[in-house]
Amino acid sequence: MASQALTTALDGFRIEVPSWGFANTGTRFGKFAQAAAATSIEEKFADAGQVHALTGASPTVALHVLWDMPNGVADVPKIRELEQRYGVKAGSINPNLFQAQEYKFGSMSNPDPAIRRHALDHLLESIEIAKALGSRDISIWDADGSNYPGTQSIKRRIEWLEEILVTAHEATSEDQRLLIEYKPFEPAFYHTDIADWGMALHLARKAGPRAKVLVDTGHHALGTNIEQIVAWLLHVDALGGFHFNDRKYADDDLTIGSIDPYQVFRIFHEILSAPAAATEGVAYMIDQSHNLKGKMEAMVQSVVTAQELFARAALVDRATLATLQDNCALVEAEECFRDAFWTDVRPAVKAWREDRGLPASPLLSLKESGYVEKAAAARGAKNAGSVSSYA
Amino acid sequence: MASQALTTALDGFRIEVPSWGFANTGTRFGKFAQAAAATSIEEKFADAGQVHALTGASPTVALHVLWDMPNGVADVPKIRELEQRYGVKAGSINPNLFQAQEYKFGSMSNPDPAIRRHALDHLLESIEIAKALGSRDISIWDADGSNYPGTQSIKRRIEWLEEILVTAHEATSEDQRLLIEYKPFEPAFYHTDIADWGMALHLARKAGPRAKVLVDTGHHALGTNIEQIVAWLLHVDALGGFHFNDRKYADDDLTIGSIDPYQVFRIFHEILSAPAAATEGVAYMIDQSHNLKGKMEAMVQSVVTAQELFARAALVDRATLATLQDNCALVEAEECFRDAFWTDVRPAVKAWREDRGLPASPLLSLKESGYVEKAAAARGAKNAGSVSSYA
Amino acid sequence: MASQALTTALDGFRIEVPSWGFANTGTRFGKFAQAAAATSIEEKFADAGQVHALTGASPTVALHVLWDMPNGVADVPKIRELEQRYGVKAGSINPNLFQAQEYKFGSMSNPDPAIRRHALDHLLESIEIAKALGSRDISIWDADGSNYPGTQSIKRRIEWLEEILVTAHEATSEDQRLLIEYKPFEPAFYHTDIADWGMALHLARKAGPRAKVLVDTGHHALGTNIEQIVAWLLHVDALGGFHFNDRKYADDDLTIGSIDPYQVFRIFHEILSAPAAATEGVAYMIDQSHNLKGKMEAMVQSVVTAQELFARAALVDRATLATLQDNCALVEAEECFRDAFWTDVRPAVKAWREDRGLPASPLLSLKESGYVEKAAAARGAKNAGSVSSYA
Amino acid sequence: MASQALTTALDGFRIEVPSWGFANTGTRFGKFAQAAAATSIEEKFADAGQVHALTGASPTVALHVLWDMPNGVADVPKIRELEQRYGVKAGSINPNLFQAQEYKFGSMSNPDPAIRRHALDHLLESIEIAKALGSRDISIWDADGSNYPGTQSIKRRIEWLEEILVTAHEATSEDQRLLIEYKPFEPAFYHTDIADWGMALHLARKAGPRAKVLVDTGHHALGTNIEQIVAWLLHVDALGGFHFNDRKYADDDLTIGSIDPYQVFRIFHEILSAPAAATEGVAYMIDQSHNLKGKMEAMVQSVVTAQELFARAALVDRATLATLQDNCALVEAEECFRDAFWTDVRPAVKAWREDRGLPASPLLSLKESGYVEKAAAARGAKNAGSVSSYA
Repeated sequence: MASQALTTALDGFRIEVPSWGFANTGTRFGKFAQAAAATSIEEKFADAGQVHALTGASPTVALHVLWDMPNGVADVPKIRELEQRYGVKAGSINPNLFQAQEYKFGSMSNPDPAIRRHALDHLLESIEIAKALGSRDISIWDADGSNYPGTQSIKRRIEWLEEILVTAHEATSEDQRLLIEYKPFEPAFYHTDIADWGMALHLARKAGPRAKVLVDTGHHALGTNIEQIVAWLLHVDALGGFHFNDRKYADDDLTIGSIDPYQVFRIFHEILSAPAAATEGVAYMIDQSHNLKGKMEAMVQSVVTAQELFARAALVDRATLATLQDNCALVEAEECFRDAFWTDVRPAVKAWREDRGLPASPLLSLKESGYVEKAAAARGAKNAGSVSSYA
Repeated sequence: MASQALTTALDGFRIEVPSWGFANTGTRFGKFAQAAAATSIEEKFADAGQVHALTGASPTVALHVLWDMPNGVADVPKIRELEQRYGVKAGSINPNLFQAQEYKFGSMSNPDPAIRRHALDHLLESIEIAKALGSRDISIWDADGSNYPGTQSIKRRIEWLEEILVTAHEATSEDQRLLIEYKPFEPAFYHTDIADWGMALHLARKAGPRAKVLVDTGHHALGTNIEQIVAWLLHVDALGGFHFNDRKYADDDLTIGSIDPYQVFRIFHEILSAPAAATEGVAYMIDQSHNLKGKMEAMVQSVVTAQELFARAALVDRATLATLQDNCALVEAEECFRDAFWTDVRPAVKAWREDRGLPASPLLSLKESGYVEKAAAARGAKNAGSVSSYA
Repeated sequence: MASQALTTALDGFRIEVPSWGFANTGTRFGKFAQAAAATSIEEKFADAGQVHALTGASPTVALHVLWDMPNGVADVPKIRELEQRYGVKAGSINPNLFQAQEYKFGSMSNPDPAIRRHALDHLLESIEIAKALGSRDISIWDADGSNYPGTQSIKRRIEWLEEILVTAHEATSEDQRLLIEYKPFEPAFYHTDIADWGMALHLARKAGPRAKVLVDTGHHALGTNIEQIVAWLLHVDALGGFHFNDRKYADDDLTIGSIDPYQVFRIFHEILSAPAAATEGVAYMIDQSHNLKGKMEAMVQSVVTAQELFARAALVDRATLATLQDNCALVEAEECFRDAFWTDVRPAVKAWREDRGLPASPLLSLKESGYVEKAAAARGAKNAGSVSSYA
Repeated sequence: MASQALTTALDGFRIEVPSWGFANTGTRFGKFAQAAAATSIEEKFADAGQVHALTGASPTVALHVLWDMPNGVADVPKIRELEQRYGVKAGSINPNLFQAQEYKFGSMSNPDPAIRRHALDHLLESIEIAKALGSRDISIWDADGSNYPGTQSIKRRIEWLEEILVTAHEATSEDQRLLIEYKPFEPAFYHTDIADWGMALHLARKAGPRAKVLVDTGHHALGTNIEQIVAWLLHVDALGGFHFNDRKYADDDLTIGSIDPYQVFRIFHEILSAPAAATEGVAYMIDQSHNLKGKMEAMVQSVVTAQELFARAALVDRATLATLQDNCALVEAEECFRDAFWTDVRPAVKAWREDRGLPASPLLSLKESGYVEKAAAARGAKNAGSVSSYA
């Protein structure tokens, strides 16, 4: 059952974990603190290293500049050391353009040129950090927008955004990429400056050849056909990568495949249908917010789920499918497609893990390792600070 | 132009403001602090009093138990004094069933009976506070739910909820009401225990005759016909009141009528179409989160907008409309209906204000009063604590 | 692998096929005629009989009164004969309250009492037909509503609807049921008189004890948690049955499980979680519109997919799951739940079929039988009438 | 009150009516025939002429090739004569790529090259018709897509589409334009080949400089900020025009502004905010389906509503607004913006009509003219053919 297609697929599949996925997060209504949550960049690296040790599939960790490297480039040596110590490397670099009080009415498209300059400076610093760390990708999430009709000029904000992204792109080196994310709403509730893939694509092209589009699977209106957008971005050679998560309503940031696993399978199918050359640079990244699940359990579960869904997609008999599609043999095509989805790949993935010297069941091994309990003991007091109690 | 219908409508229109609407709020991505935001229950009363002084239409302020009365019933004398000093009364009492760490997996429908007991105790305390303050309404927002399929038993949680609400209802006095709110998602992202009006209605009936349904206009799936739900709740004598706000996407908590003013008009039309007896107890309350707009400006604007939209709805010629509806004269009925919506009631509302000794233009008077600047000077340092800076 | 749970589940699983599912259908933009589509009630029975012969799981066929029994009760002997000849029985009876020109502005809630009387008469005739055929269920889909705000009185239409349903219920015999369907929009585009489960539940209760709610899985706003509604309807003993289909956008009437198979699994899980007594009357029915897929292929595929997803749901270890839910062991509960979903039940279902003397692969057997080709030859000329050509 | 801005705006505002808007239409559940509906191209021209005579704002009528000119270019002289007789000119030309049986699995992106060639031929014929009629715009609505995951290759269909559009563009003359429409779903229910503005923009650019994007206001996922898309299309010089209509749920094809008038105002504001040069070619067209409203009444109402909302948008004090936007004076900016929306422009529009020798109240004049009754008398028998009766 561990077919060659599946083995090749699993050998080539890597998914980046986010440093912020190990720290406490919440909703606007509050945060439920976990004793074992990471409270420092070192703890985040330790956790990410453990996930990779268990799964063999997450060798890099995404960093959020303000949260993980508050001293900017000066923090690079520390990160280098953590990479060595914990066996995972720094991955994509994420500027923070939404947290500072200055950004109340926008960062890159704020009407105030001084604030736009702040935003640009932070972007440029992030690019420098990425260079120093050898990180290829700078992932730009622009949270800007407006909350009420008429309160901002949509058009002028486009122009400001273009200007900054062009300048940022000029600062990148040949082997770097700017990934431009889009999102329809939240935290802005009337208009978001980069609301959909069409806007992100325009900006990426305006910025330059090393700018690509970043697809966060939770950033679409309900009903949107995400795999079609993926196919289009591949078609126009502009797919930079993914922030994977799942949702039922809005940007719920749930575990990948937890609500609609068939959709993830379809996304992977589009990628596997494209020429290898078109997809080799595509970055798979997790961007989730586990408010209730245990951080470590959820991250291991996420990586495993991604692997299994990728393996299912790898099993699609694409040659047969193409013929059935050409013949408009709808039911047969659908059955061919779903045969792969319904195949229980778990035994084969387990076999692959054992072949590669990895734990057969990463979640079980995590549990048996006592890692979470130890982390809770070591970090509990630090996390307790954010814990209030009703009693 | 200041027709009798309009005068009567405005004389009878009252809308409650929320204490939390004067304090800093934000999204899960952060909070932009305002220097003039209220930092204490006294400041909230001062602000609410000012809104009422300017509009004459917001004589009560909703209180959030944990935030406004941390000592419970012991805080009642203090509230009494603030009512006197600032000329607004305590309105609905809002228990807090979402903030304590114990509520991570639910409050009233937590699988742990001890936690459910905590939630019940808080409800009972809230009812006691309401009695002591002479507040008719206890507004219950149940934030409980689950984030992932299979992780909780939907059915058993219904039973737990029923049990608690029955007990809480027993504790209310004859002149009190339990208002049960519903919401489809957030902060729970897979299922919310009270997700729609049908669930809230069942629970209200199970609880007892003094339990009614609370409609938050932002708590519906996109596309939902909210005025139809209002008509149904009136039909079954179960409409308790409203939390007004507007939204374009999810529970965006924007200013009433800022995105879809025609919808608010239609809601008011349903209420004005019902027999007066059926609607006299309906509570109009604002529940908004002005993350970017100035708190005071936004609240005055909200009250004024609500007045104007209510005035428009009061102008509908309902007798003529009924005949046109009976005759299925669609275009004529629609034109009759919209004639009221398109009427510019602002001059008439201004005239009504002057007749009642109120400022003709509340927003302008607020600006000229310098109230916000004085508040900022007095409160700025306290609010600065939550302000971080990029520079 | 063919566990006892699975065998019991499959032995007990029956899903009704709709007569109209074998005839040509389309969208408002046109109809693509199929040569093999059924053009008469006899051909529909022949097709339904063939589906049942292949799957062993669809022993009844839903009838649409106007389309299948234009002479009303007088057509009963003919139906009886077809039941005998084709080995499937008449199932639910579906009145038609949307097609007649009189119903332009509504049927049961038309402002014109004469038209409401027409609608009632048709309901009463449908009940008589059902009695004569021994059909338990009359499925009422009320397509009424309005297209523009203000053009109809939402409230008065509720009253008219109540009145008719009470009268209809009185006409039912003890062993009959009225199933009341809800739908948020289409063909009405502003308000639909029975828009959601809360409205349907109220009307069912008003009508009487033999009225229940019918859930069409395509009749919800995007994002709605359908399995939660199922759990609630079971909780209040009001779940009458299902019209199964799938959709990505609106009421797309696609094949069950073709867009979101996990959702169907979750619905079945809620049913299997309820006490057997609460669910024994629940009717499973298909209501799909295969505009492009071959009618027979699609129907066989639908029944097989329903069986397989029901089998998956039957494998959930509900005792273990309940404990994990009680302990709020989220990841473990989810893994327990999904273990059943990911199990490849196809070999076991195939084994069950062989045990029961059924074709191991119904779709393959359909193909090998040449049934569709024969039908096309016999019916092609009749279907060609509706075929126009560009050339 | 009839300010210069408003007069200029009204003098320059023209909106095209669709020939198909005068004929009977319906939903997939049936069609309610109107006695006065147009049954021939002559009657459609007569109706359009009457709408223009009443409003002075709809001098052109959009034609649907297959329905209105079944003989193609040979029908041009007849159309010329109708233009003369009824005082309205042929406007945009609409190919029909969805009705022929050959198009079951697609037209321009059908896997069968012969069918793609049919589609291209029809496009080329439509371009020739447009040339012969002196029509600038060919409006291409591509209804193609697929209903089930895996049944078609999304990617290859993009390539086929590009190929055809490039060829069609080559056939256009310098003063012609191809308008490419997008739509997320219906009649295709899994993927639509041109699903959003990003896809339409790519195809327009691929096709050539005379291809632009056509925005149908009903063709977006719920929640989409349409005015932002308009601003973007203006920014990239690719806005070709609009198909105006309103909706609450899907592509409901309701009267413009009947559900959300504020949204139409915001769209017009974006256009009026752009440089005149950028918007002078933008085509305003109505595309509605009045299944229940009287055809003529609804069309007159649509044109009048569009005029009034355009007039409101013309009143926005854009210089003041820009300053307030720059200052992030949110509440003041919003009040400035909405001051125009809330202004009752009806008296001023009436005055403008009288100045221009038009009926002060087009709807009233239509009623008094007896036009509809006369049309019903003349056309009733022809329309009765499609009327069936329940009785």
